[in-house]
Amino acid sequence: MKIIFASSTTSDPDSWIRLLEEAIPGAEIVNWSDNSGTVGADLAITWSPPHDLFLREPGIQAVFNLGAGVDALLKLPGLRDNVPVIRLEDAGMAVQMAEYAVYALVRASRSFDRYQQLQGERRWEPQQDIRRRNWPVGVLGMGVMGARVAQMLAALEYPVAGWSRSGKALPDVQSFAGSDTLPAFLARTRVLINTLPLTPETRGLLNRETLGQLLPGAYLVNVGRGGHLVEDDLIPLLDSGVLSGATLDVFSQEPLPTGHPFWADPRITITPHVAAASLREETVAQVAEKIRRYRAGEALTGIVARERGY
Amino acid sequence: MKIIFASSTTSDPDSWIRLLEEAIPGAEIVNWSDNSGTVGADLAITWSPPHDLFLREPGIQAVFNLGAGVDALLKLPGLRDNVPVIRLEDAGMAVQMAEYAVYALVRASRSFDRYQQLQGERRWEPQQDIRRRNWPVGVLGMGVMGARVAQMLAALEYPVAGWSRSGKALPDVQSFAGSDTLPAFLARTRVLINTLPLTPETRGLLNRETLGQLLPGAYLVNVGRGGHLVEDDLIPLLDSGVLSGATLDVFSQEPLPTGHPFWADPRITITPHVAAASLREETVAQVAEKIRRYRAGEALTGIVARERGY
Repeated sequence: MKIIFASSTTSDPDSWIRLLEEAIPGAEIVNWSDNSGTVGADLAITWSPPHDLFLREPGIQAVFNLGAGVDALLKLPGLRDNVPVIRLEDAGMAVQMAEYAVYALVRASRSFDRYQQLQGERRWEPQQDIRRRNWPVGVLGMGVMGARVAQMLAALEYPVAGWSRSGKALPDVQSFAGSDTLPAFLARTRVLINTLPLTPETRGLLNRETLGQLLPGAYLVNVGRGGHLVEDDLIPLLDSGVLSGATLDVFSQEPLPTGHPFWADPRITITPHVAAASLREETVAQVAEKIRRYRAGEALTGIVARERGY
Repeated sequence: MKIIFASSTTSDPDSWIRLLEEAIPGAEIVNWSDNSGTVGADLAITWSPPHDLFLREPGIQAVFNLGAGVDALLKLPGLRDNVPVIRLEDAGMAVQMAEYAVYALVRASRSFDRYQQLQGERRWEPQQDIRRRNWPVGVLGMGVMGARVAQMLAALEYPVAGWSRSGKALPDVQSFAGSDTLPAFLARTRVLINTLPLTPETRGLLNRETLGQLLPGAYLVNVGRGGHLVEDDLIPLLDSGVLSGATLDVFSQEPLPTGHPFWADPRITITPHVAAASLREETVAQVAEKIRRYRAGEALTGIVARERGY
């Protein structure tokens, strides 16, 4: 069984391959790149693979992705419908996303930016105390990531609701299910945290119309995908006061182009797609175990439902 | 039974008194100030009361403080040893302190300051992924506040230890008890979060010698009292690289004087004693219940042990 490692963004494929080989007994993994020709791969371990992966390797029987998002992978030409795509689950990412969301929320709810400004002016001016009921948080997406975000914010006693296609029951988190409930979910939400997977249904979901339904003083945190946000709508929403600010980790084009207006907008906080990095150790252990199970014919989790796109 | 409300810092004592009277059936509460003379008070509700409270009102039988810290109150002249002092417990403060601590920690551990700087330069440069094991957190003080801080950080999967006089067992929090264990506690700690009460034993505990025992890249978060930190030691510790930064909410003199060097130091983050505000509703409900219990002769919590000072 021939396993390839296919990534056009990893700077050190050899060290990944070494770790994966150590974790998968008996495995020999080929570093597959633009110059590899066709090697007759059976299994592919991918992370932003070269565009022609499935055209050059039509014998691939299963794909193991080193990340949770598979929106780009599923669009590659030649990927047959009957080839299972297995995505990473958690692997240390959910807790990172939770703390990122807490940071972005607390920075807004507790006036930390204002205090930073006041410090620069040597001014000792306590701002109004926080009333948690004034900061209802809504989490879009209730997968492993979204659920962890929602639970952490509930532990900090914010009023939290979660929205997903099929709903998810979590203690202290109000559940909204399906697109019919989106308006009600938005109408009770001040801070909106997006953790959705990018699919044809969710692309462009964050736009002038939906964000306009949030509570006054609304704040957006996007840790999903850049394609969820209609980026041209954001600055007008900030200018009109519909949104008070945004923290964005993902963008329709990454790296965000140098000339993009988001960079210089003081109401927008930018991080370079780092909210949740898949941690190497956890990732290697999880992918190795998935491959072991696949080869042994055992049950697997993380298989992408191709028709829904995640 | 005559109840007085004695505060020299509250801007709107009348609204506090109205809420307290509503919450304590049959109570009539006198706004006691510098001009009140002696009214023959039996019970005092205090929040930074006038200095001569106990001299002018020697008949006070119990003191209910609208805050958790009683270090200043206990020093007022004329306060007899046998007068119980009851301090506020939690009242919405612990969760605020927990989120403040999370904010300060995550800002350091996840390079948010660096990203802010990079945004200003329009640079897309992911920093090294976080390894939680490189960020062991130590919480000084395991009261209601410290325990909540420790639990929240443990939920975010940081290695957490708590130090207190008598130790406290909490899930996923390593417990250190007593001054003998302080060196070991410091030696395993990178981010030190102080939530201690200020007593003769804890005054000046954060100094050149103790902070010098922390792990490399150490970071200090002080949400206890300004008197815990030997303030003259801080900038030399930052200059020598022993500390990489500090977030301070409390100072030996508050408001922090305009000319103080902390204001302009980019390694120091200053907030104006706002980490945990006692929330009015919760505070009123709690103090009313404590007074009800006191008058009914029922058991009370929050009674300050005068010999230990908190």
